[in-house]
Amino acid sequence: MVKPFAAALIVLLTGSSTVAQTIYPIDRASILAGARFDFKVEFPDRVDPSKLKVTVNGEDHAAVFGQDGTFVEREDGKDQSALMLRGVTLTRPGNVTVEVSDGTRSRTVTWTVYDTGPRKAKNVILFIGDGLSPAHRVAARLLSKGIAEGKSLGKLAIDDMPHMALVATAGSDSIITDSANAASAFATGHKTAVNAMGVYADRTASPFDDPKVETIASLAKRRHGMGIGIVTNTEVEDATPAAMVAHTRRRAAYDQIVEQLFAARPDVLMGGGAANFLPQGAPGSRRKDAVDYLARFRDAGYSIAATAGELNALAAKPDTRQLLGLFAERNMDGALDRKFLKGGGVAKFPEQPDLTEQMQAALNILSRNDAGFFLMVESGMIDKYAHALDMERAVYDTIMLDNAVALARKWARARRDDTLILVLADHNHPNSLVGTINDDMSTTPNLPLRERVGTYDKAGFPNYPAPDADGYPSRVDVSRRLALFSASLPDHYETFRPKLDNPNEPSVKGDAPGAFKINEKYKDVPGAVLRLGNLPAMMGASVHSGEDVILTGTGPGSERIAGSMDNTDVFRIMADALGLAAAGQ
Amino acid sequence: MVKPFAAALIVLLTGSSTVAQTIYPIDRASILAGARFDFKVEFPDRVDPSKLKVTVNGEDHAAVFGQDGTFVEREDGKDQSALMLRGVTLTRPGNVTVEVSDGTRSRTVTWTVYDTGPRKAKNVILFIGDGLSPAHRVAARLLSKGIAEGKSLGKLAIDDMPHMALVATAGSDSIITDSANAASAFATGHKTAVNAMGVYADRTASPFDDPKVETIASLAKRRHGMGIGIVTNTEVEDATPAAMVAHTRRRAAYDQIVEQLFAARPDVLMGGGAANFLPQGAPGSRRKDAVDYLARFRDAGYSIAATAGELNALAAKPDTRQLLGLFAERNMDGALDRKFLKGGGVAKFPEQPDLTEQMQAALNILSRNDAGFFLMVESGMIDKYAHALDMERAVYDTIMLDNAVALARKWARARRDDTLILVLADHNHPNSLVGTINDDMSTTPNLPLRERVGTYDKAGFPNYPAPDADGYPSRVDVSRRLALFSASLPDHYETFRPKLDNPNEPSVKGDAPGAFKINEKYKDVPGAVLRLGNLPAMMGASVHSGEDVILTGTGPGSERIAGSMDNTDVFRIMADALGLAAAGQ
Repeated sequence: MVKPFAAALIVLLTGSSTVAQTIYPIDRASILAGARFDFKVEFPDRVDPSKLKVTVNGEDHAAVFGQDGTFVEREDGKDQSALMLRGVTLTRPGNVTVEVSDGTRSRTVTWTVYDTGPRKAKNVILFIGDGLSPAHRVAARLLSKGIAEGKSLGKLAIDDMPHMALVATAGSDSIITDSANAASAFATGHKTAVNAMGVYADRTASPFDDPKVETIASLAKRRHGMGIGIVTNTEVEDATPAAMVAHTRRRAAYDQIVEQLFAARPDVLMGGGAANFLPQGAPGSRRKDAVDYLARFRDAGYSIAATAGELNALAAKPDTRQLLGLFAERNMDGALDRKFLKGGGVAKFPEQPDLTEQMQAALNILSRNDAGFFLMVESGMIDKYAHALDMERAVYDTIMLDNAVALARKWARARRDDTLILVLADHNHPNSLVGTINDDMSTTPNLPLRERVGTYDKAGFPNYPAPDADGYPSRVDVSRRLALFSASLPDHYETFRPKLDNPNEPSVKGDAPGAFKINEKYKDVPGAVLRLGNLPAMMGASVHSGEDVILTGTGPGSERIAGSMDNTDVFRIMADALGLAAAGQ
Repeated sequence: MVKPFAAALIVLLTGSSTVAQTIYPIDRASILAGARFDFKVEFPDRVDPSKLKVTVNGEDHAAVFGQDGTFVEREDGKDQSALMLRGVTLTRPGNVTVEVSDGTRSRTVTWTVYDTGPRKAKNVILFIGDGLSPAHRVAARLLSKGIAEGKSLGKLAIDDMPHMALVATAGSDSIITDSANAASAFATGHKTAVNAMGVYADRTASPFDDPKVETIASLAKRRHGMGIGIVTNTEVEDATPAAMVAHTRRRAAYDQIVEQLFAARPDVLMGGGAANFLPQGAPGSRRKDAVDYLARFRDAGYSIAATAGELNALAAKPDTRQLLGLFAERNMDGALDRKFLKGGGVAKFPEQPDLTEQMQAALNILSRNDAGFFLMVESGMIDKYAHALDMERAVYDTIMLDNAVALARKWARARRDDTLILVLADHNHPNSLVGTINDDMSTTPNLPLRERVGTYDKAGFPNYPAPDADGYPSRVDVSRRLALFSASLPDHYETFRPKLDNPNEPSVKGDAPGAFKINEKYKDVPGAVLRLGNLPAMMGASVHSGEDVILTGTGPGSERIAGSMDNTDVFRIMADALGLAAAGQ
């Protein structure tokens, strides 16, 4: 038996392709007792089914799982066999050793099946700040709470919680995650690969046949009849919201994700992304088929909202139990555009609700279910703005997340804290606050703008106006503003100034397919400098970074949050609070 | 009465210079009951002492503090009066309002005097990773613990602790701190300005007359007769170690800091920095006077060590109670150079101890004091390497910090956990892990090296060799290595490779005083690219960033670590654990 570290090195050094067989769930997977999963073995070549032996803790797999599964001799038409068992469960907690032999080669993986205690929380609210990074936190605190002589004048609701942990974010394929496999880890407790959600990414060509793992939404509904809410300000088809219920290894498959969202019937689903709900040919549609999902949801009993006004009216009606809110064709707009600058898509969709309004409506509707609810609330544009090096917009949407968390915590306190509230990012962005940009620093004309970057004592304190009641300063184009920079850059023009017209676009699509080129729009902004990037030229935006994210929590079950955790542990914290294991009912 | 936020805005918008009077300690200072501090009022102009009225909670200040203080009519020879009371204390917990009036103008500040409970911890060990950032943590974990299919194969000792908090780092003058005022906040519980330690930075020219605040070292010694240890691998005169005992607003005043270190008589003092202990003219000396501080320490009863061998021998001797260890003239070398590459100053000082050896020696010596001890252990070169964009060396010294923390925790467990152990950074660096640099990624010759930066799924996992028993891989120049970049850059040549000869030097001193210019040394490294910086041209290195740092802790008193804290709270946690308040004895 090799030591754990040596075993890992084999993976590091050789890659999984030369390992005898690939087994899903992967080695060291943690599996909730009673949660459904697909068991798959991929053989690197064609094997003789009569020589195949698959045991689970020494017992034949068919006896353990109650089915033989499907053997495919030539998967995807190639000389590679596969065995698939759909929808199996393991109910007895403990270590599980799976051995697979084709008569010649064998492979062993070990899983841990875990129980939960009795249910502690009636509800779970999972807040995800997509791409929310430490720099966004400190900037949001500076702008929304103020600071005097170095001491903050208030605490963010996202920080001021009894429990905190560092959460590691690597995926099964890379030290850097995207939002799909990150959200999937929260939703299922299983690691997967970039672009995948609710599945292990297998080798077949189809992005819809991969071995599935059950989501927290499915478990909460199946075990306890709980309500399910998914709230975002990105497209509802985007990775984070979709991963709460969907199973695909291709996050870009929006049409199929809408189909899966409909099949899952979350009680509340809202955000942007109307385009893929509309039949092909309808104005604004991006669907590739003629299905009208707005009609399907309506026919299934959903109330439909397209504006803040409609949302608030529907949420106030006591008989609204299922609601679909789609407030923009693509992503919704962030707080800075909606409330102040009116850029982005605000002119086209002027009545988009705030994330706090969306969440309040969701709480109103979901709390009508006496069985409790699971609600995911994402402030998702933080990530989009961070990719685009639009620091101010990312910070404003961090403040918005904080407002939503504050509201939820107030709501939970009024209910004697029967609700587990978790707040975390899915991954970081390589953004940092290196000081201030101070227009008053130099009166020398034509001095390069980088000379206005104040560091250490020259940074001082920014001079944003006092925030409004919601924590937002009314202006970002002040003379001493935060200097937030990224460590990953595409080629771009740095203007050292916030973008007041529309969200930043450092690059635009290039001439070759998938290529990017520098956006010349900012070239003539006074003082703009060309900054050459440190990413491959095909990367048109700043990228994710691999640091741990910060998890904070309060409410029943949050006491499990401590130290250094894995992103799959977030699922386990929620499953434990809700007593979702087979034995935990 | 203005609301807190409005009051803060006055400070933000007008600066303190137009405020009627400046009062030290500053508004909202938290003061440990019984801790000594200097009380100073600076009047913006010349005032009539007969019209002066200073009250503390309505009582005359002389009655409260037991002294009138010294009134200076023309401070620094200018038309600006000042009142100074040295070494006062407040013993009654609660809010304290100080009102100062010169007959015309008045100013009010409010302090909070706080008590501590009874002593809970025999010892306190404060670990400081200077500049330790989230990117260093995750990189140290990847290299020293390994990872398989996205799940870490082990936890860092610095992370795996029962309590965690975010700690805000701004100083009284700026959102960006340096190591002096950061360490001073930990050591005294008071905010101060860049370059200052153990004092509020007043307006006078002298860097040695500023109003002082008492350090944890002084309190621990004065109240309980505890031992004091200061361990670093930078120069012992550097900001972090010096701030444990020193009082100056100029951290660069090394000669005077050595004088103050000697006056404070820490039982254990070790690191680099021999140069300022040697009399002017002696080989390697940087002193500006003829005092031989090695001789002074020896005459005062200290054992002196200059090598690891001497250190270990002295620490093993049961009668060694006071030890000065100076292992290099300037900074010591980091783990990567000492153990593997032999660059930096290793040739000149080949017998430097590891930080773990230094700490073990300190524990041996300090634990001979039955009254307990306060020990600060700094892995200080993380910061120096991060400034120099030398990512590998910073990561290796993070692993070294982790080893020291693991050792201390093991030591404390064997003593039934009578020791509060805290680990935190003093500030962040704008470093991030954006993926891997993969030499095997492209076989196209002359493709720019940036094309080898693998992000997301293309990052995969690095292929460092398995770590040795201390957690260090034997090589950093592997074909798939971590891509750690900074968001603050001086102009420099980016080589996309670790520096195997000596620590990185992105810039060198320029021709004008205080100026920097690009280091041409790396220009001809194959594939090196010129990257223009985003900092003022006079900044020759990457700079600190203003995100919260992560505080983890274990042991008696660590239960106070939670949520969002201020760096001055670190002092309070330690003071509380040791029962250092007047009433807490």
